[in-house]
Amino acid sequence: MGRGDLTPESIVRLEAGAVVLLDQRRLPDEELELRCESAAEVAEAIRTLAVRGAPAIGVAAAYGYALAASRGEDLDAAYRVLAEARPTAVNLVWALDQMRDEPTPERARALHLAEVDRCKRMGTHASALFGPGTKALTHCNAGGLATGGYGSAIGALRAAWEEGLLEHVWVDETRPLLQGSRLTAWELEALGIPHAVIADSAAAHLMSRGEVDCVVTGSDRIAANGDAANKIGTYGLAVAAAHHGLPLYIVAPTSTIDLATPTGAEIPIEQRDAAELGTRFPAWNPAFDVTPAALISAIITERGVFRPPYHFS
Amino acid sequence: MGRGDLTPESIVRLEAGAVVLLDQRRLPDEELELRCESAAEVAEAIRTLAVRGAPAIGVAAAYGYALAASRGEDLDAAYRVLAEARPTAVNLVWALDQMRDEPTPERARALHLAEVDRCKRMGTHASALFGPGTKALTHCNAGGLATGGYGSAIGALRAAWEEGLLEHVWVDETRPLLQGSRLTAWELEALGIPHAVIADSAAAHLMSRGEVDCVVTGSDRIAANGDAANKIGTYGLAVAAAHHGLPLYIVAPTSTIDLATPTGAEIPIEQRDAAELGTRFPAWNPAFDVTPAALISAIITERGVFRPPYHFS
Repeated sequence: MGRGDLTPESIVRLEAGAVVLLDQRRLPDEELELRCESAAEVAEAIRTLAVRGAPAIGVAAAYGYALAASRGEDLDAAYRVLAEARPTAVNLVWALDQMRDEPTPERARALHLAEVDRCKRMGTHASALFGPGTKALTHCNAGGLATGGYGSAIGALRAAWEEGLLEHVWVDETRPLLQGSRLTAWELEALGIPHAVIADSAAAHLMSRGEVDCVVTGSDRIAANGDAANKIGTYGLAVAAAHHGLPLYIVAPTSTIDLATPTGAEIPIEQRDAAELGTRFPAWNPAFDVTPAALISAIITERGVFRPPYHFS
Repeated sequence: MGRGDLTPESIVRLEAGAVVLLDQRRLPDEELELRCESAAEVAEAIRTLAVRGAPAIGVAAAYGYALAASRGEDLDAAYRVLAEARPTAVNLVWALDQMRDEPTPERARALHLAEVDRCKRMGTHASALFGPGTKALTHCNAGGLATGGYGSAIGALRAAWEEGLLEHVWVDETRPLLQGSRLTAWELEALGIPHAVIADSAAAHLMSRGEVDCVVTGSDRIAANGDAANKIGTYGLAVAAAHHGLPLYIVAPTSTIDLATPTGAEIPIEQRDAAELGTRFPAWNPAFDVTPAALISAIITERGVFRPPYHFS
């Protein structure tokens, strides 16, 4: 696969007998595909981050469920193993619930294409918030890789770039797994958008120097009151952005909004293996944090731009 | 060297014909000594971070200058090469200026021991600010390795630990060179102080969960108005600490205070090689940032505890 070919199918697709994924753990050094031949193998790919990003894992789970149906697997067991692969993203369960009545490849594919279409609409809504010459900062990877196609936060940056409003993107490297320096920079290079990777801890310094106009991220789950869970570090960026009077925009599909979760306090935060930090000393490795609604300037979904106080229903 | 033996001499010393340094680039995997046989080799060790930390590079430069004198090197050239090894720390030039009148091994050794003694006094002053059961967060390494002996910020933690006031230390891993997870965790393990390494971006999340009582760091240069340069990321921690109503303490010897620099705006910020971030995409790698005095709850030197507005003279 050439890097210019970041199509929905190149990220995740269903073939005869397998869900085929671009293995995001190997990027940017190698562009390798991973074949998952059962729901359990898809769940394992989700758990080990071969595919990651809330919308993309929803799409992968939908294909996995269709695969399980075509193989005659026990669908309750398939649902369970896929739903439990990661705890924070709500899109995972949402996508599986969409599949229950019609566990077919066609249904999964329709879900996938609808996800890509939603991203494009989000991008258009979000880029309307950008002024000319914007220098944006983003965290983790909310791109085509994370959404199965166009990207949520990166979709907004793509749309702003196409409209001539975007000057530069600062890419938080995003420790410990470096989704920023590995995946977001790889996508921005493919898109020809000017960018530079920074250590996560350099973001506030850049803001103090006037080098950042806005922060744009995705989200893994948004509570009914607008509190948003996203990759660890987003909350610190939100605090720093507020301190410097800069807007923080969260770009995410409606499927990310969990009306059954009243506030961020009820969002489960995944604790990942401390070994990801690569130290032999004791370590603590939360994968997500929660940004309170009060620190989020706008939440942009495919339905439009929401402002605080947030009312989604 | 066993890890229990973190003596001033084990970190840096002058032998016949060489300054001998514990190579901090190899820690914690290997405890190797580096022999520098000229002022230029000492400068190279400083530039490449074999020895780092503002007070420790001052001590290393003093030994390097004494070595240059004993070898009959051109002392103006030796001064220059050492002073220019790194731009942000002011202790480097301060230590060299202390050596000019008497460029002897004895003078360098006295400077070294005075540095260790200052750290112990700072630790005593700083720990008086700690309440019982304190959970402290520190960034980078302001320990024995950084100061040639006892440590500035870690000196404060040591003193608080000995007084039974310290419960736990959160160690920012400190990208890109991981001085926290490599060096600070190594020192805290040797000292038997409970600790856990975190991704830098997890600090604000920990604060929001009530898991941090104070932030304690060193500094590479403090301006006359109290603005303080320190490892990139300190400023973001300061903003987050202020947001959560937590104190930020800076522990540093008087030699770090540069009365000739009126404010932080005049402190040169070293830009280091983007390759340190380990990405093949464009990157930007400032090594330090400046925390404005207004965000610093106290600056603790060997002379005592200073509070804003800062007047050091």
